[in-house]
Amino acid sequence: MNQSQLCPRFEKAMDILSKRWTALIIYSLLPGPQRFNAIESFLPNLSGKVLSERLRELEAEGLIRRDVYPEVPVRIEYSLTEKGNALSPLLEGIGTWAKQWINPES
Amino acid sequence: MNQSQLCPRFEKAMDILSKRWTALIIYSLLPGPQRFNAIESFLPNLSGKVLSERLRELEAEGLIRRDVYPEVPVRIEYSLTEKGNALSPLLEGIGTWAKQWINPES
Repeated sequence: MNQSQLCPRFEKAMDILSKRWTALIIYSLLPGPQRFNAIESFLPNLSGKVLSERLRELEAEGLIRRDVYPEVPVRIEYSLTEKGNALSPLLEGIGTWAKQWINPES
Repeated sequence: MNQSQLCPRFEKAMDILSKRWTALIIYSLLPGPQRFNAIESFLPNLSGKVLSERLRELEAEGLIRRDVYPEVPVRIEYSLTEKGNALSPLLEGIGTWAKQWINPES
């Protein structure tokens, strides 16, 4: 086993995904577009400040899209891009693994 | 969408997997049992101190096993348990996603 076997893309992907809250924010968008408040109420331990920050980072990484609808009041929705959506089988896989192997009490 | 939809097991699984280096250490054990030095050389940016710490944590979580062979000199090997091995499709999925979507230069 040598260093060249470690794909730098894998390391970068893990850097993105392993950032605290990132996977859970993507997970919360799997059912479809959501408004800020809906994501916030889905993740009650996450502060609004950190959520804004993560949403901006995920938008910059091309994982989510921010759509502004010029209604009164203005409506802003976040949704997964194709790149973000491509993570859905992985996140579901983590869910399945967790269900089988993780005891939430321990 | 409400709070009860967020599975606490998923959150705990993400807590384990999102810890820096954890996924890469598991990834390095996918081909089979490895000695400490082999894992260390596979992850050149990871210090030996942090690697020892992570290996202990992963052993405590039941993801890896530490086998001591009473040879001279003593041989110690780390390998994935069934629980750890069950992550292999996920890690491979992350690899596939990364290959398709991540530009390591950016």
